[in-house]
Amino acid sequence: MNGEPMVIDHASGKWADVRVDSVADATIAIVGLGLMGGSLAGALRGQCANVIGVARREETASAARKLGLVDRATTDLEEGVHEADIVVLATPVRTILQQIPQIGPLLPSGCLLTDLGSTKADIVEAMAALPLHVQPLGGHPMCGKEVSGIEAADPTLYRGRTYILSPLPGRTSERALALGQSLARAVGANPLIAEAARQDFLVGTVSHLPYMLACALVATADATTSHDPLAWQVVAGGFRDTSRVAGSDVTMMIDILMTNQREVVNAMTEYLTHLKRLAQLVAEGDEVKLRQVLTKIRQTRREMFP
Amino acid sequence: MNGEPMVIDHASGKWADVRVDSVADATIAIVGLGLMGGSLAGALRGQCANVIGVARREETASAARKLGLVDRATTDLEEGVHEADIVVLATPVRTILQQIPQIGPLLPSGCLLTDLGSTKADIVEAMAALPLHVQPLGGHPMCGKEVSGIEAADPTLYRGRTYILSPLPGRTSERALALGQSLARAVGANPLIAEAARQDFLVGTVSHLPYMLACALVATADATTSHDPLAWQVVAGGFRDTSRVAGSDVTMMIDILMTNQREVVNAMTEYLTHLKRLAQLVAEGDEVKLRQVLTKIRQTRREMFP
Repeated sequence: MNGEPMVIDHASGKWADVRVDSVADATIAIVGLGLMGGSLAGALRGQCANVIGVARREETASAARKLGLVDRATTDLEEGVHEADIVVLATPVRTILQQIPQIGPLLPSGCLLTDLGSTKADIVEAMAALPLHVQPLGGHPMCGKEVSGIEAADPTLYRGRTYILSPLPGRTSERALALGQSLARAVGANPLIAEAARQDFLVGTVSHLPYMLACALVATADATTSHDPLAWQVVAGGFRDTSRVAGSDVTMMIDILMTNQREVVNAMTEYLTHLKRLAQLVAEGDEVKLRQVLTKIRQTRREMFP
Repeated sequence: MNGEPMVIDHASGKWADVRVDSVADATIAIVGLGLMGGSLAGALRGQCANVIGVARREETASAARKLGLVDRATTDLEEGVHEADIVVLATPVRTILQQIPQIGPLLPSGCLLTDLGSTKADIVEAMAALPLHVQPLGGHPMCGKEVSGIEAADPTLYRGRTYILSPLPGRTSERALALGQSLARAVGANPLIAEAARQDFLVGTVSHLPYMLACALVATADATTSHDPLAWQVVAGGFRDTSRVAGSDVTMMIDILMTNQREVVNAMTEYLTHLKRLAQLVAEGDEVKLRQVLTKIRQTRREMFP
């Protein structure tokens, strides 16, 4: 056990604060050892007191040990988390939603419970119902790969990436938020604080929309050019990059789409308007307008990624 | 002068064949020293007898010399091409269309005239009217960058990329086509033969469509999330990759869109159908169907890029 024991003031209904202030002192349990969880474990190992991996299957726990990603691994959730100072849920969003109420009573007093899910409104709502001895903090590191599973784990996955933290107003303590920021920095990421609704709106357009666009591009090519045997020799960098995220894990993506339905549909509707307008300008051969629109877009893109 | 002098059989109307069979023996003139032409020059220099750069402005010719991309550079088109065994037009598509009839009479007998334009139907049609002492061959290396100009020239730009060659049936000789293939290989690219109409259909979907999608994505973000100051800290790899080609040179892209209008509009129309269908599945929350569609797309993407 690290840090000072916490006393919960049940009379006032006040929550317990975190029991460690530094990642270096913490025992960190990561629940779910896929690409995201396995990579986080590997990035944290050696930087904190202990990294405990919790997997559903013994095969995965065993792989985490063999790959050197964890100090120890278990398939027993209670055993894995009962001494943890920080617990990170690294499963698909709707699994996280099921795990939050189950795991709350298993956590020691002053434990920080956070997650890696890409949508935050539903998760933060579920976290609001956690017992008062737990400190909740939503988390969303903006990274990923088109491969899944622990074999693809990469301790450098988080480096240089934005790691969104969504505190629960009136519920997440300042020390808990600071500890979450330290966790993000420990894996090389840049923490950014955004409340759940705001983060869901933003990632609906900058992350979930690109996934849908990539999927529609692959579907289009599959329906047309792929009938020509030359097609896949012709695919250029533009197609490869624009379609890259269509290779994302489907279960993870469906959970994301179903828990951010409104923002994703809004973003797609807005996008369809812009694309139809561009198609019309090309069809009409309106070069003056087309040049004006494409030039502004190019400038905007350059401002986004200087 | 390299190779044997060619005699044109004007009586039979038969064209002259190429006067060199190897890139190593060739004097190669590159007309247009932007990103594509400058990079080609740099990739060829030292691998052939001479690389001559032809630029519109002395400033560009001077930069090409200083950057070591050419053996010599000139702003005089006639002087630049009159001794060349191979001439490569490396300007935007509609400039190429203007240059083809102008340059034909300036070329020596047995000269191979090829180009780097992204659309081929109009170019190959213009090449069909070239004088018989010239060997025409359409070319389209599938590469690029979101920076333009000679300062961005990169001799490795063509490495590993597909380089489409569109011969003119009954007009491009076998030796001319073989010389074009050698040229592609000399810069590290993989030559692929496709007649003009077929190439335009394929690149409409695999190259020009991704550009339009990237532009519409940037326009969407600009219209919605960019009002939030956090937006650009949140942009993840998915957005960056999916929007990358929106940074392409606008003049080059408008020329491409206007000379491949029908195929681009067809591809966008097909795309809009697929994207609307995906938006509907998300809006309806039809998870079974969504999983089925997204899983097939993921498999297709993996087959495209194993």
